[in-house]
Amino acid sequence: MKTYFAASAFALAATTASAQDVSTTLPSAVGQVAPALEAYSTDGLIGDVWSGEQMSMRDRALVTFAALMTRHETENLGSYVELALDAGVTPAELSETITHLAFYTGWGNATAAAEAMAPVYEARGVTAEDLPAVDPELLGYDEEAEASRQDFVQSTYGDVSQGVVDTTEQMLFLDLWRRPALEPRDRSMVTVAALIAAGQPEQMTFHLNRAMDNGMTQEEAGAMLSHLAFYAGWPKVFSAMPVAKDVFENRGS
Amino acid sequence: MKTYFAASAFALAATTASAQDVSTTLPSAVGQVAPALEAYSTDGLIGDVWSGEQMSMRDRALVTFAALMTRHETENLGSYVELALDAGVTPAELSETITHLAFYTGWGNATAAAEAMAPVYEARGVTAEDLPAVDPELLGYDEEAEASRQDFVQSTYGDVSQGVVDTTEQMLFLDLWRRPALEPRDRSMVTVAALIAAGQPEQMTFHLNRAMDNGMTQEEAGAMLSHLAFYAGWPKVFSAMPVAKDVFENRGS
Amino acid sequence: MKTYFAASAFALAATTASAQDVSTTLPSAVGQVAPALEAYSTDGLIGDVWSGEQMSMRDRALVTFAALMTRHETENLGSYVELALDAGVTPAELSETITHLAFYTGWGNATAAAEAMAPVYEARGVTAEDLPAVDPELLGYDEEAEASRQDFVQSTYGDVSQGVVDTTEQMLFLDLWRRPALEPRDRSMVTVAALIAAGQPEQMTFHLNRAMDNGMTQEEAGAMLSHLAFYAGWPKVFSAMPVAKDVFENRGS
Repeated sequence: MKTYFAASAFALAATTASAQDVSTTLPSAVGQVAPALEAYSTDGLIGDVWSGEQMSMRDRALVTFAALMTRHETENLGSYVELALDAGVTPAELSETITHLAFYTGWGNATAAAEAMAPVYEARGVTAEDLPAVDPELLGYDEEAEASRQDFVQSTYGDVSQGVVDTTEQMLFLDLWRRPALEPRDRSMVTVAALIAAGQPEQMTFHLNRAMDNGMTQEEAGAMLSHLAFYAGWPKVFSAMPVAKDVFENRGS
Repeated sequence: MKTYFAASAFALAATTASAQDVSTTLPSAVGQVAPALEAYSTDGLIGDVWSGEQMSMRDRALVTFAALMTRHETENLGSYVELALDAGVTPAELSETITHLAFYTGWGNATAAAEAMAPVYEARGVTAEDLPAVDPELLGYDEEAEASRQDFVQSTYGDVSQGVVDTTEQMLFLDLWRRPALEPRDRSMVTVAALIAAGQPEQMTFHLNRAMDNGMTQEEAGAMLSHLAFYAGWPKVFSAMPVAKDVFENRGS
Repeated sequence: MKTYFAASAFALAATTASAQDVSTTLPSAVGQVAPALEAYSTDGLIGDVWSGEQMSMRDRALVTFAALMTRHETENLGSYVELALDAGVTPAELSETITHLAFYTGWGNATAAAEAMAPVYEARGVTAEDLPAVDPELLGYDEEAEASRQDFVQSTYGDVSQGVVDTTEQMLFLDLWRRPALEPRDRSMVTVAALIAAGQPEQMTFHLNRAMDNGMTQEEAGAMLSHLAFYAGWPKVFSAMPVAKDVFENRGS
């Protein structure tokens, strides 16, 4: 095993989190039963991938949390909550992430994530005032695009499940997506991370385009794929690569 | 956030379970770290979806249990066992559900579900007499349809894995599917719920048709999709929608 | 329920593990809430499938561990570690399996597996000397085939994520796959088992061919599909069957 990437310690200076903080997410049992895995973790994943400059450590911590929550990897999730907060994700943003991903990866993933977050938030003195409001003033939205989306879904699936059509419009696109507690770019970014982690690249096109429409760069999207290969496994990412390629090419970049 | 559905409190009168019982499945940590998620849960999911009249609360509790078991969301599964029993699923039916889904979602999901059920059954005084017999008199079956299924699988996959072909016939279609402890409609319904939750819509056509052949209505199937969107996540349901649409259209309804 | 297979007690004589050892993986709660599932487990799965002669008990224990680790079924994984070691998988091989599958099913699955393994290894006196070296002498490899693979991936995905392309070559194919702690056949076999368990048959062709190039027989591959139907669920295996069929036919066997 060698070091696969150029050292880039300066990349860490921009956040309060460091590679050392990432290493707190690695259970000691790893070194005990698999020293090689520990070495891949500390040299490759933690030492190099996390400090890659194509994506900020804050974004890496956020998409890692989204991926692990999606995979219901709850036993160690608290340490990733700590890491995300240390890397600059606000308590409100992380709270809104689980609210958002309740809809996109299932309610039980969100309630389990809440149980992992609660002791961390309590220890850090996060209070209700720090959290997203239940009934905030909603962001504006592209009414024409939404009407077009809704028309398509209504005409295609109205006869299949009017309940799905209605809740998708009323709870998701006219409400959840317009909540201001998470930037539209971040909201779409965690959605894409969740879809990759769940093995659902067939749903990714819409959300990756939306993330990039709202400011995620192609370089960041490519770095996210590389980052998530470690947390979701290479095959999940390789199944997402053709979809990302199509999106990038159709955007003409 | 607003109330998305008309109030329908009377719909609950038909069962002993109520929206209040559903609320016991929500961990208190949710309100602590994500008040918005708590509001979506109590107003939207629990207050409205669970009381939708297109599907009975008993069926909702059964397919929710099937979906959560499939997703190995074990830490909170005991509360859904309680909910299902309160909503009118019998201890025998729930027991048979885990036996059935051992084959359809993997043995470890079933053994973990058994561990979540055991303390609830013990507390409620469920005894061996209340549970499905090991060797019951089996239901009759459509011998022609089964012979046709078996011929197709044998000729297609006999050279790939005779073991799969043989166990599918002998353990599943000539035995498990004929056990009387779960109505054929319910057996197929939990199978479809499991396939949606597992992200395997490609296997759904056969089982959704079978559920509807045995009495599940299209309205119920549509309501199940809408219900499971919350528990399996929207993308899982949107990947299942085209399959359901094809099934509905091919049945001429 | 009947006994579905001919008795084959002699098949067990070749290893130190027996059907009785497999039965230790079955929680007692199963018999308490689902006697029928217990009967299917002891008569069908444990009594017959595990003693099938088409695949060794050692291989069965190894692919079962790979499948359960992939599914993050951690609460009972320690008993499968015990079973694998009793069936002849060495501590080094099992350690290398989690290192390998960290890349192929996600880091969190591997770290959770390490936590399940650590107490077993400690109780059995496994020490660092028994485990794979961090920096071993690497196996040779087919440089032409690897150059061809890399050219294809670089030209197809270099514009999508150079990070994925680079780490795939440098960490996986020039390093991980060449580590000697797991036979190439076994390394590919656990990869295929993981892909089946994860519901990713679309990635299976390459790895199943590689497993068979390195000595896995078609009979063993067919038996693995039948075995994993129990642990990953029938639908996962039925989605993998067409891929296996194509691989077998294209190999002209």
